[in-house]
Amino acid sequence: MVRIAICAPGKRLEREDADAVQALAADDTAIDLQFHPQCFARHGHFAGPDDKRLAALVDCAREPSVDAVWFANGGYGSNRIAAEAVAAIGDAARGKRFLGYSDTGYLLAAFYKAGIGIAAHGPMVGDIHREYGTTAIRRALDWMRGGSEGLEPSLDEQPAAAFNLMTLAMLCGTELMPDLSGHVVMVEEVAEHLYAIDRLFFHITQHLRGIAGLRLGRISDVPENDRPFGASEEEIARFWCAKAAIPYLGRAEIGHDAANMIVPYGVAASAARPYAPAGTTAS
Amino acid sequence: MVRIAICAPGKRLEREDADAVQALAADDTAIDLQFHPQCFARHGHFAGPDDKRLAALVDCAREPSVDAVWFANGGYGSNRIAAEAVAAIGDAARGKRFLGYSDTGYLLAAFYKAGIGIAAHGPMVGDIHREYGTTAIRRALDWMRGGSEGLEPSLDEQPAAAFNLMTLAMLCGTELMPDLSGHVVMVEEVAEHLYAIDRLFFHITQHLRGIAGLRLGRISDVPENDRPFGASEEEIARFWCAKAAIPYLGRAEIGHDAANMIVPYGVAASAARPYAPAGTTAS
Repeated sequence: MVRIAICAPGKRLEREDADAVQALAADDTAIDLQFHPQCFARHGHFAGPDDKRLAALVDCAREPSVDAVWFANGGYGSNRIAAEAVAAIGDAARGKRFLGYSDTGYLLAAFYKAGIGIAAHGPMVGDIHREYGTTAIRRALDWMRGGSEGLEPSLDEQPAAAFNLMTLAMLCGTELMPDLSGHVVMVEEVAEHLYAIDRLFFHITQHLRGIAGLRLGRISDVPENDRPFGASEEEIARFWCAKAAIPYLGRAEIGHDAANMIVPYGVAASAARPYAPAGTTAS
Repeated sequence: MVRIAICAPGKRLEREDADAVQALAADDTAIDLQFHPQCFARHGHFAGPDDKRLAALVDCAREPSVDAVWFANGGYGSNRIAAEAVAAIGDAARGKRFLGYSDTGYLLAAFYKAGIGIAAHGPMVGDIHREYGTTAIRRALDWMRGGSEGLEPSLDEQPAAAFNLMTLAMLCGTELMPDLSGHVVMVEEVAEHLYAIDRLFFHITQHLRGIAGLRLGRISDVPENDRPFGASEEEIARFWCAKAAIPYLGRAEIGHDAANMIVPYGVAASAARPYAPAGTTAS
């Protein structure tokens, strides 16, 4: 039995999304999904105030019977509790898996830096409402059970990490940021203008000197601007990588969509073993 | 006679804006405005390709007969040419004033870091089309002539610097970023959601430890979100400043509007003397 605890470090979870995922997993007697009540709290922009979101996250991460902590949604807000969560979780989550993306990348990064569990960039509960969302949910459940079928196809023996581009830009230089030297770094973005993508690449490439290379995930739902930018998303990535002497390695199968594949932080082969100690994947 | 050269490091200038500013300055025989033809170029998002925008900026900055370089517009793009501009301008712009804000903050920051001229955050040519835009243009012209009437009212003997919040966030940790230890740092923003303001404050406050304090300019045209954020712009600033042990000093008279006051980088009193050597204001 794999026990998966679900909390919402940023945006709240809709009841119908929780019900749909619960229904999808109902046939699988090897999985037990435990939705923390905090998932459905509401406080302005967030799924409850900072202290409530923090407490739920720490509860899930420290609970000995829990094998994996699955983030309900992105949105915004996990950066507000990440440092406190690291301090409160300590050594209590060593073998646990943590899965999410978008805004929850602040937690993945901070946990990877601190050696807390096995962090991975991949589908969240709220993805159930996307087109083909059930495939994303099945991929997530498989990975949390120790499977490797949903891994991003370019992953190999090199350590890797994946981020939403804005999340990575905001992480750079902060106390939450892990050392990504020698890592393949994958980035994806949604609903940002191409000039903003260019600006974010200016920022992150200056902070990522020394990585093994960069892969570009999907850049989706780019808003129409009053004038065309004049370069494609891949030209932007190549331009800034070249300026910072970072190898551009091509595309990555990640994005704000149901085809979002799973990228464990560190060496994926280590994470493919069920509940490998976190220490084997940290840099 | 004060000779002011105008170029567009990011977005192009509209002819009618140039004409309106030229007409406004026509009565003042002590001012000579020289619009570089590059102001009106167009290349995708930008006022010409990078090499053309760079060449115009360097021309203006190095021309011995020019007293001040005035940026036509913000938009996006000055970060793409800033490092190259610093290298190409070298010592040729020692006494010159540089005036702009928004995206041109990359240049102000890089020039301040390099000791190139006297950089200030204040109105640009394109502000003429704003409501009460003529007051902004007159304020800019006065400062470029050595006047001090348009200075931001909180400025005192402490060194200061002002930025668009997004621009400052993207500058943090890059090769363009000056050392702002001991400075009063003022920030303003336009057309960003409050959750994005919060996220940017998370980032900049981690990078600005050691500054004398932070002042909050105007946060304007905040888009409606699907849910209220739950904290005001000033609560956001206070929250993150407290977390990073940065004194929050109150509001600043800067913003994306015609009331945008002038903030010379460094000690304003030094810049108030016409054409003071740049070395007197650099940290």
